[in-house]
This record gives sequence, structure tokens and C-alpha cells, in this order.
Amino acid sequence: MPQRREGPVSALGRHLRILDAFAVGTAFLTLSDIARRSELPISTAHRLVAELEYEGLLERLPDRSYQLGLRLWELAARTPRALGLREIAAPLMRLVQDQIRQHTQLGVDGGYDVVYLDRLSRHDAVVNATVVGGRISLGASAIGHVLLLNKSTEFLQELVDSGIRHYTDATPRTVAELQSVLDEVRCRGVAIANGFVHPLARGMAAPIYGPDGAVVAGLGVVVPSADPVKSRDVELLRSAAAAITKQLRRAYVDPRHPHALPGAKFRVLINSSASSMQYFDEETGTISERGAPGH
Amino acid sequence: MPQRREGPVSALGRHLRILDAFAVGTAFLTLSDIARRSELPISTAHRLVAELEYEGLLERLPDRSYQLGLRLWELAARTPRALGLREIAAPLMRLVQDQIRQHTQLGVDGGYDVVYLDRLSRHDAVVNATVVGGRISLGASAIGHVLLLNKSTEFLQELVDSGIRHYTDATPRTVAELQSVLDEVRCRGVAIANGFVHPLARGMAAPIYGPDGAVVAGLGVVVPSADPVKSRDVELLRSAAAAITKQLRRAYVDPRHPHALPGAKFRVLINSSASSMQYFDEETGTISERGAPGH
Repeated sequence: MPQRREGPVSALGRHLRILDAFAVGTAFLTLSDIARRSELPISTAHRLVAELEYEGLLERLPDRSYQLGLRLWELAARTPRALGLREIAAPLMRLVQDQIRQHTQLGVDGGYDVVYLDRLSRHDAVVNATVVGGRISLGASAIGHVLLLNKSTEFLQELVDSGIRHYTDATPRTVAELQSVLDEVRCRGVAIANGFVHPLARGMAAPIYGPDGAVVAGLGVVVPSADPVKSRDVELLRSAAAAITKQLRRAYVDPRHPHALPGAKFRVLINSSASSMQYFDEETGTISERGAPGH
Repeated sequence: MPQRREGPVSALGRHLRILDAFAVGTAFLTLSDIARRSELPISTAHRLVAELEYEGLLERLPDRSYQLGLRLWELAARTPRALGLREIAAPLMRLVQDQIRQHTQLGVDGGYDVVYLDRLSRHDAVVNATVVGGRISLGASAIGHVLLLNKSTEFLQELVDSGIRHYTDATPRTVAELQSVLDEVRCRGVAIANGFVHPLARGMAAPIYGPDGAVVAGLGVVVPSADPVKSRDVELLRSAAAAITKQLRRAYVDPRHPHALPGAKFRVLINSSASSMQYFDEETGTISERGAPGH
């Protein structure tokens, strides 16, 4: 959720307040739940809910409760910084997960937090606080630490002032502690966050760079903190993140560039097989005008 | 995109028209592109874009073009019928993909189309028209055919009247053709769509049932149409879909039920390791009120 800002609440702001009433532990809400959680009069909530349902942003269930609607997924699928990056990273995330077999995750900068785009897990993996679409403070998370490589000392101060949750005694919570963590990240090339979010878990993350050279995302794993740090795992993470950086650069080549790959126009959002990318080029009228081929 | 309906365009409808201007081949748009594609006066588009940017639904890039914003991903991550289903299906999708090594995908009912929630692919896989968040007519797609198992003959007529795209000469486009395809699906338990979307590709799909016994999704693969149908692949697809059905039922057990698994409250949206689900239960105040642990 973005930081709350001052000023009057717009019509759009009220619609979003309704959508924000739905959280990961409260995926289904009645109209009166929605009104209460969004702090709106029931009559206002009723009208806004009807509008959101009409547009497919909310769906009404047979028991008359509501859930967030499929149309949000269709819109989210066209975000270069979320779905697009996830598509580009997906094959390399699977490669890391197949080797390390704990949790593999991808996160981007969401203000003072990491926003997690994806997570691959196993039933028997170590405890991990990450959920897809969820947030953890930049200060506490290994992916957060690689994202902080971009930031000024002033920003670190703001982050500390915003309040980094005291997950464990190891969580860095002052500018000096963060600077010392970031020095190590710069030195090693990867972040190693030992017990910063949970005593049993170690986060490790490597930076993914955008076409302009700034860190745009982090590729991370969460492994048991009791296990030794394996240099093989660190190397795998670093090389997978470097491979994503390379794929990202290829995805952002101007489609008119002579070296652009087939389907270049779609590569910021789609990462399918080589013959599919070629097909999308041929189907360009359909796919680009209507959001998806065949529609 | 939902079907266009009659009536005046609401404020929300105009905001969505702006968001809908962004498509998979046009992920970055200038203000004048947006105004043109959404058929709004530039001054109106300017105001709406500013509101959407303020709320994090649009993001402005250094070159002053816009992209859809990260907040859409955060909202989409709380849709039980999209992200939630994808979380539940993800480990079984990876299992299928590791065996069949072409494309593995998951789709749900989006009116007259399948909406695809996820797709795993390989660089060397056969041509495939599916994109995540994209649509293909229920009539043309193997996943569409398993979703049609729920529907009446009247619905089939409506679907045909809505116009099923003539992808290939094999695409079923009349009620009689669809009924004959559906008879085969009922008989085999899986849909086999040979060259219905592209002559080189065969879609195969198995039904995923919701807790109430209706088909809620399809698990599919896209393989080369020239290869023989392997009974081992069909069996894998069927058993993976059955396993997702079972996991879905477990995810929808009432959290107060004595047999509910740890983290039951979160299982419609989160599928992490056993110890993580336990942790979410303990962290319930944080995770349920703020959308994600640690925030």
C-alpha cells in the first residue's frame, strides 16, 4: 500500500479505499465488513461496491460476500515493473529453486518496502514471511538491501524515521547499522541477512540492474540460518541475477533496432518460446490492440 | 477486458478506460497516446492520468511516458480466483512443466474467453498464443473446453453468436462442432484441441473443480501437434489437475474447522512452506490488517 498522503480523498481514492479493505487474511468481505474497514458510511460503500462490481474489480459470491475481481489480474498483467519483470525472471527463478530447494523470490522497490513479485517455495522449506504482492521493510530484507545500494544517506535516515519493524534483535534499525550492512553487500556483491526477519531464516539476494545501470530488483533466496553459507549458492544467485539483468536489457532494446529479437515489442511483458514471440510479431494487430491475441 | 455494456460512463469507467489504453504491445504510452486510445479529450485525460499517478496505478517514466503501476500488482495479489488459485496450482504446474517441457498453463472463465493466470514455457517450446492475463475464446482453447463442461446449450449458442475467431480450419465455430468436441472431453476426461489455435500446436487440458463441484479452472499444456498424444502426458495432466482440486478444497476449509491446516485463513491467497503458514497464523494481526506481514 502506498504511503497515505494528505489532502481530500478523490472519487478514485474512495474506490481504492474499498479495494484496500481486502487483505490477505480477509479475502472475502460482506458489504458491512467493507464499510467498516474502509471507514465509509454504508450507503456510500453500497454505491461504490456496485460500481466496482459492474466494472469487474469486485465479484459477488453466492453467499453475497465479495472478493477482488479477475479484472485486476488482467490489468496487473500489463505492468512492466511487476508482471513483465516476473516473466523475464521466471525461468531463472525456477533454475535457482531447482538447485537450492527452499524459497526463491523476486522483489522491487515500493517506497520504504520491498514489494514481492513472486515466490517459489517447497512444503518443507524454512519459515519465510514473504507473500506475493506483500511488503517487507527495505531495512529488514536481503532484497531490500540490494535495492538500498541505489539510495542516499538522506534516504536511509528517512527509512529509519519511517520505523523499521523490530523483527529480531538482528534487524538493522539505525542508519549506522544499515550502512555497515550495505558496506558488506558492496564488498560481497550479494546481501546476506542472517536472522533479520526470523531467527531461523537467512535471506540472500543479488542485484538485478535495469538498462540504465541502476538496481531495479533483487533476486533472493530464503534458507535455514543454521546451514553454513554455501559459496556455490551465492555464486548461483549472483549468476542468475546477472542473467536476468542481461535478459532485461534484451527485453528493453528498441523494437526497431536491427538487433532486436523477434517479438521485441512484447518482451517487456511476455517471455514465451522463440516461436511464440515470432508468432506475436505476425499477429501484432490483434495482440497489441486488444490486450491479448484472439480477443 | 469485460464485455462493453450500455449506459453512461461513470467516473470509475473513465479511469478504467485510461488503464485499458495500455496493452501488451503498448506498455508505455505518452499522454497524447493515452488520450487518443481512450477516446477522451486531452484535458480530461490529463486530469485522470494525474489522479491515477497519485494513487500509484500509473507510473511516470523519465521520458515522461507512463506505464501501469505496481499498485495494480499489489491489488491483483489479493484475488482468490487469480493469484490465489495460481499459488495453489504453482507447485503442480512446475511438476507438469518439468515432465512435458513445453508450455504449462492455468486458465479460468472470463465470460466468453479463458483468462490465463499463468504460463510456464521453455525457449524451444512449440508456438503458443497464450499470454499471462490474456484471453482466448472458450471455443478455441482446450482450457476453454473444460470450462464449457459447466455450460448450457443456450450459452454455447451465445458464445457462437459472440463470434469465435477462425484461427484455423479446425477451430470449432458452431454449436454442433462445440457439442461434438465437448462429448469427447466428457468421454476422455481431458480436452485435446489439435490445431484449433495454430496448426503446429496441440492444447490439452484437464478440469480443476471448486469446493462446490463445478469446474473452476483448467490446467493445460501446449505441445507440438505433430507428436503423438502420449497417454503418460494425459495421465500426468489429469492427476495434476486432480491434485490441484484437492489442494483447493483444503484451502477453502473454514479456518475454524478442527481439521483446518495451519494458516487456514491465508490459504486462499498464500501457499508457502508448512512452517511459513504456521508463522502467518502467529503473525495474524500484522498480516491480516495490513495486507502483508511486516507492513
